[in-house]
Amino acid sequence: MRDSFYMQLALDKAWEYQGLTYPNPAVGAVVTHHGAILAIEAHQQAGSSHAEVLALIESYQRLSGKRVTFDPSDASMAHHFLRTLPDGFFAECAIYVTLEPCSHEGKTPSCASLLSQLNLLRVIIGMRDPIVGHDGGAKSLKRVSIGVLEEACRTLIEPFMIWQTRAFVLFKLAQTSNGRIGGGYLSSPHSLAHVHQLRAVSDCVLIGGNTVRVDRPTLDCRFTGQEAPDIVIYSHTDTFDRTIPLFGVPHRRVEVTECLAFLDTPSLVMVEGGEGMLQALSEKIDWLLLYQTPKLSTNNLTYNIAMNLHFLHQERKDVDLMIWSRKSNE
Amino acid sequence: MRDSFYMQLALDKAWEYQGLTYPNPAVGAVVTHHGAILAIEAHQQAGSSHAEVLALIESYQRLSGKRVTFDPSDASMAHHFLRTLPDGFFAECAIYVTLEPCSHEGKTPSCASLLSQLNLLRVIIGMRDPIVGHDGGAKSLKRVSIGVLEEACRTLIEPFMIWQTRAFVLFKLAQTSNGRIGGGYLSSPHSLAHVHQLRAVSDCVLIGGNTVRVDRPTLDCRFTGQEAPDIVIYSHTDTFDRTIPLFGVPHRRVEVTECLAFLDTPSLVMVEGGEGMLQALSEKIDWLLLYQTPKLSTNNLTYNIAMNLHFLHQERKDVDLMIWSRKSNE
Repeated sequence: MRDSFYMQLALDKAWEYQGLTYPNPAVGAVVTHHGAILAIEAHQQAGSSHAEVLALIESYQRLSGKRVTFDPSDASMAHHFLRTLPDGFFAECAIYVTLEPCSHEGKTPSCASLLSQLNLLRVIIGMRDPIVGHDGGAKSLKRVSIGVLEEACRTLIEPFMIWQTRAFVLFKLAQTSNGRIGGGYLSSPHSLAHVHQLRAVSDCVLIGGNTVRVDRPTLDCRFTGQEAPDIVIYSHTDTFDRTIPLFGVPHRRVEVTECLAFLDTPSLVMVEGGEGMLQALSEKIDWLLLYQTPKLSTNNLTYNIAMNLHFLHQERKDVDLMIWSRKSNE
Repeated sequence: MRDSFYMQLALDKAWEYQGLTYPNPAVGAVVTHHGAILAIEAHQQAGSSHAEVLALIESYQRLSGKRVTFDPSDASMAHHFLRTLPDGFFAECAIYVTLEPCSHEGKTPSCASLLSQLNLLRVIIGMRDPIVGHDGGAKSLKRVSIGVLEEACRTLIEPFMIWQTRAFVLFKLAQTSNGRIGGGYLSSPHSLAHVHQLRAVSDCVLIGGNTVRVDRPTLDCRFTGQEAPDIVIYSHTDTFDRTIPLFGVPHRRVEVTECLAFLDTPSLVMVEGGEGMLQALSEKIDWLLLYQTPKLSTNNLTYNIAMNLHFLHQERKDVDLMIWSRKSNE
């Protein structure tokens, strides 16, 4: 198959962890051996192994028939292990990675340096690392191709590029297939757990005063057991009943404000709400994340707003459909 | 990779032609060579080459570096060509096919007989052919595995199984991402062309009287240049203005009826409409096909109905999302 086929597999895998890698970019990697796929992996969370490393560990396991005895997400262990394999172990392998391997030694060792030592048959890169200081990883590599599905690879890291300089604003919406947003929990347990994972990595969850008063939400991460996010309530008055559950969650900061200047700070902000918040934040929204449930409903809570979108990625979350889209100004 | 990985690729390819293969089932096939993928193909229309044959022709081209000089969709030519290849040409190849290769000599020669002669390393089959007289193809094959992603393969041919005994009723709906269905053409040219392809293979398009009066549609296949489908207008009175374009399309039968008994005949019926037809046909609908556009709209034409769905497959059609779902009785 063409390089773009394998790169697409790497992209699809990376999308499964979109947002969850914050503050790192989403990255996917595929390793092949004479065209046969050995591994399809993605970076899953900041501080743990990068996509290339996970894919190489899995490829080692497939080629050797052995299992490693450490956790592959432990980047130091994984790098060390890969560096001690016999010379030429991956000599017949190619690696596809959506983003140029890091030249930078940060929380994890440099992937470019590792790949340079492992001396694979080919390294195929979706796009160069756009961050000065992290880029240039490809320079140390031989037999490199750069720019396969480059536009799609650029879209994948769009949130990352935005949160370098200001808040990436992700508006989350759960709806039926005919666009109804009311009537209790709409989403599957799998979708709800995904929302809680996103909440856990977000710097804050931004909601409207009306949601607080009407829904009396908790907005924690109980489905995943992670720490609850800080909350910003967008409201010009603060007359909220402090017995509303969100105020009682431990280790959480709740702020009530009508000032959105905090969105100028590099961060990940998830907005949860309905028509009111969509209207109020319409200028600020970067992406919309839609969890669409497989039902048509007569519930009359819908939302009226004119907004052009650009679909970026869709995948199933259990019975639901999860659709990532960009607000388009066209 | 596991067998299920390759079978999923075959399934995804087959879904691209869902409905369009009528009266044949949608079928996909993948050929691998030591795990490397040589071809991913699907049956595209009745009377033309089956998925296995297209995948083998493409694999021949990849392995030999030569192009065949005939149209691979010509089943007789393709079968003949494959049968005259040197013995053992595909001896190192495996083929994945979503449905048991046909034992039957119909419009095209038997695929099971062909595969038997070609004597591949492995034949991996999603599910047995459920049609008596067509089944048993696997019996003539060596080194066969049956039942990989069987449930998904069964879902793929659900329309085919239904139209063996009565009409398969496919309700088509185009909407914005917030469930609005009015305001002129919503879909991308790619989606519209797909609708016209489905119309062209359908035995008839079923619409409501209100759509005829209000939209004054043509309901032809001008985007694909195919012959326009027959039309059934579901209405208890016939007071339609004969200058409405759909009545003027040549070589088309238009029937006005309030009797749905014709749905008891084996056939493919596409329903186009809005809330009224969804309500009126709710008991008769098998699947819903949603073309969802990347926009939120303030257009107030929406649809109110309670219906549980089961998402079956989603794919992008240019900028739109195409979602196949089954009406669920749960």
